[in-house]
Amino acid sequence: MAKRLIPSLNRVLIEKIVPPSKTTAGILLPEKSSQLNSGKVVAVGPGALDKSGNLIPVSVKEGDTVLLPEYGGTQIKLNDKEFHLYRDEDILGTLHD
Amino acid sequence: MAKRLIPSLNRVLIEKIVPPSKTTAGILLPEKSSQLNSGKVVAVGPGALDKSGNLIPVSVKEGDTVLLPEYGGTQIKLNDKEFHLYRDEDILGTLHD
Amino acid sequence: MAKRLIPSLNRVLIEKIVPPSKTTAGILLPEKSSQLNSGKVVAVGPGALDKSGNLIPVSVKEGDTVLLPEYGGTQIKLNDKEFHLYRDEDILGTLHD
Amino acid sequence: MAKRLIPSLNRVLIEKIVPPSKTTAGILLPEKSSQLNSGKVVAVGPGALDKSGNLIPVSVKEGDTVLLPEYGGTQIKLNDKEFHLYRDEDILGTLHD
Amino acid sequence: MAKRLIPSLNRVLIEKIVPPSKTTAGILLPEKSSQLNSGKVVAVGPGALDKSGNLIPVSVKEGDTVLLPEYGGTQIKLNDKEFHLYRDEDILGTLHD
Amino acid sequence: MAKRLIPSLNRVLIEKIVPPSKTTAGILLPEKSSQLNSGKVVAVGPGALDKSGNLIPVSVKEGDTVLLPEYGGTQIKLNDKEFHLYRDEDILGTLHD
Amino acid sequence: MAKRLIPSLNRVLIEKIVPPSKTTAGILLPEKSSQLNSGKVVAVGPGALDKSGNLIPVSVKEGDTVLLPEYGGTQIKLNDKEFHLYRDEDILGTLHD
Repeated sequence: MAKRLIPSLNRVLIEKIVPPSKTTAGILLPEKSSQLNSGKVVAVGPGALDKSGNLIPVSVKEGDTVLLPEYGGTQIKLNDKEFHLYRDEDILGTLHD
Repeated sequence: MAKRLIPSLNRVLIEKIVPPSKTTAGILLPEKSSQLNSGKVVAVGPGALDKSGNLIPVSVKEGDTVLLPEYGGTQIKLNDKEFHLYRDEDILGTLHD
Repeated sequence: MAKRLIPSLNRVLIEKIVPPSKTTAGILLPEKSSQLNSGKVVAVGPGALDKSGNLIPVSVKEGDTVLLPEYGGTQIKLNDKEFHLYRDEDILGTLHD
Repeated sequence: MAKRLIPSLNRVLIEKIVPPSKTTAGILLPEKSSQLNSGKVVAVGPGALDKSGNLIPVSVKEGDTVLLPEYGGTQIKLNDKEFHLYRDEDILGTLHD
Repeated sequence: MAKRLIPSLNRVLIEKIVPPSKTTAGILLPEKSSQLNSGKVVAVGPGALDKSGNLIPVSVKEGDTVLLPEYGGTQIKLNDKEFHLYRDEDILGTLHD
Repeated sequence: MAKRLIPSLNRVLIEKIVPPSKTTAGILLPEKSSQLNSGKVVAVGPGALDKSGNLIPVSVKEGDTVLLPEYGGTQIKLNDKEFHLYRDEDILGTLHD
Repeated sequence: MAKRLIPSLNRVLIEKIVPPSKTTAGILLPEKSSQLNSGKVVAVGPGALDKSGNLIPVSVKEGDTVLLPEYGGTQIKLNDKEFHLYRDEDILGTLHD
C-alpha cells in the first residue's frame, strides 16, 4: 500500500530532478553539463513557530521547482522511490521558465 | 509490574516498526528493501514552553505512525520492550496510507 | 549532623534506584536484565526564570520516580549517601505503575 | 529554455564581475592588479523574517554593484552561466562610481 | 590594609569549607571521607540583567552554605586568604542542617 | 574611474594609519615604537537592525580616528589603496588629542 | 601629543596595578606574594544596548579599583604606557579598603 508522508514543522519533501544523461535524439551529453541541483516539491509541512509563537508558513508549495543546496537534506525511501527532506530555510530559491 | 512512562516536555515515546525480513508467504526479502525508519507513537509529553512562556503542545499524538531521523533519539527499555524517546522537533513527519 | 540540600534554580536532587542483582528468592538475575536508569526525586529547586523573567517551576515533584538520561547529572555525596543533581529539562519522563 | 531563479528569504543572486586581464589597447595587466571581489545583483529574495516576525527586506536591489566577501556564497550554474548566491548580510557594501 | 571585594553582576564570593582531616579527638579520617564541595558565601553582587532588562538578584545571600560544582569558579587571593568567585547560576544549591 | 564604497549594515570602512618609521628630521625610529593599531573612518554603513527590528546606527562617524583590534577586519583594495572593513562592535574606541 | 581613548560600547580602559617587588624599606618581597590581578579604571564606554534596545550603562566608573580575570582583555599602548581594555561583564568586582 502506498504511503504518504506529511512533513513536520517547516520540512519540505522533495523529489530530485535527475538531468538526462542523453538527449532524446540519443546523443550522449558530457558529464556534469547541467549541475543544477533542483527538485520538485511533493509535500510541505504546516510551518514552524517563531520565537514569539507565530506560525511561519513554508515559503514553497507543492509542485514548485526548487534549487537545492549541494549538501544537507535527509534522504528517505517511500514507496520504493527516493525523496529528500529539507528545511524550508535551506531551499535556495524557486526556478521558473 | 508493568511500568508506564509519561515523557517530559515535548518528548515522544516511540516503538520502532521493524520491517519483516520475510514475506508472509515465506519468501526472503532482500536486505534493506525497506529502509523507512518509522515508528508508532506510544506516549507524548505535555509540550514545552517557548521563549515567551507559551506552552507549545507536541505535534504528534498517540497512535501516529512517524518517520524518524537515522540518528538521534534515546533508546530505553521498558517492561522488557525496546522504545525510543525523540524530541517532537526531531520527528520528520507522519506517515499515512 | 545530617545535612539537607535545597537545589538551586531548576535543579532536581535524585537518589538513583539500583536494580536488585538477585531476586528475593535468591536467584541471580542476569546482568543488565533491567537497564532502566531511574531514580527517586528527593528535592527540587524553586524553578528557573525564562527569558521574559517568568518563573518556570520544576515539572517533577518530591517522591516522583523519574527516567534519567544515560549521561549527565552531577554526582554528590550527602550524609554518606550518593545522590545526583539533574536539570529539570534533562529528566526524560516520569514512571508510573 | 532559459530558467529564472527567484532566491528564497534574503538570498541575493550575483553575477561576479571578472576583471579584464588585458586593457582594451592590448596591454597585459599584471596579475591581481585589481583584487576587488565584486558582482552585479541579478535577483533578490523577498526578505527574511526577524525574531519578532517582521519581514526585513533585502538591502540591495537588482542592478547594484556589490562588494563580496572572499569566502562564502554558493556557486550555481543557470542557463550555462555561473552565478553565486549570498545572504544579504554577507554582502560587504555597494560600489558607486 | 584589608581589602573588601564587591563582586560584579551575579558573581558570588565564596570561602571554601575545608573538611578536617582529623577528628577533634585526633583520629585520622580516611581521605575523601567527605567529598562534599561546599563553601560559605562571603559577598554577593547586585545581580545581573536578563534579556528584557530586568535585574535578577542573586539567589544566595551572605552567610549561606552552598554546594559547589567540582569544576569552574575563579580562584582569587584577598588579604592572604583564598576565595573563589562563582556565577550565581553555577551554585548547585544551599546546604542546611 | 574612482569607486566609492557604501558599507552595508553596521560595517565601517577604515584607512589604517601607518606610523612613520622615520621622524621628519630623518632619525630612524626603533621598530614598534608605536604599536597603536589605529585608523581613520572613511565611510560607515546605515546601521544594523537589532532583534526587535530597531535600527541601531553606527557609533563612529566619517573622520573619526579609531582604535582597532589586532585581528579581524576584512582587507579590501579600492582605487589602488588598501582599506579595511570592520563591524562597528569590533572597533575598540575612538582616539582624541 | 598625548592621546585620549574613549572606549566603545561597554568597554573599560584599565591601567593594571603592578605590585611592588620591594617594600619601601627596601626589603625584597617573595615573588607572587600578592597575586591579586587588579587595576584602576581610566575610562569607560557609553554602555551597550541590550536585546530590547535599552542602553545598559557600564557598572564601574573612572577611578574604581577593579579585580580582573587572569585571562582576557586587550593590551594596548597609549602615550607609551600600557593599558588593557575589558568588557564590563568580564570585570570580576570592585575592590575597596
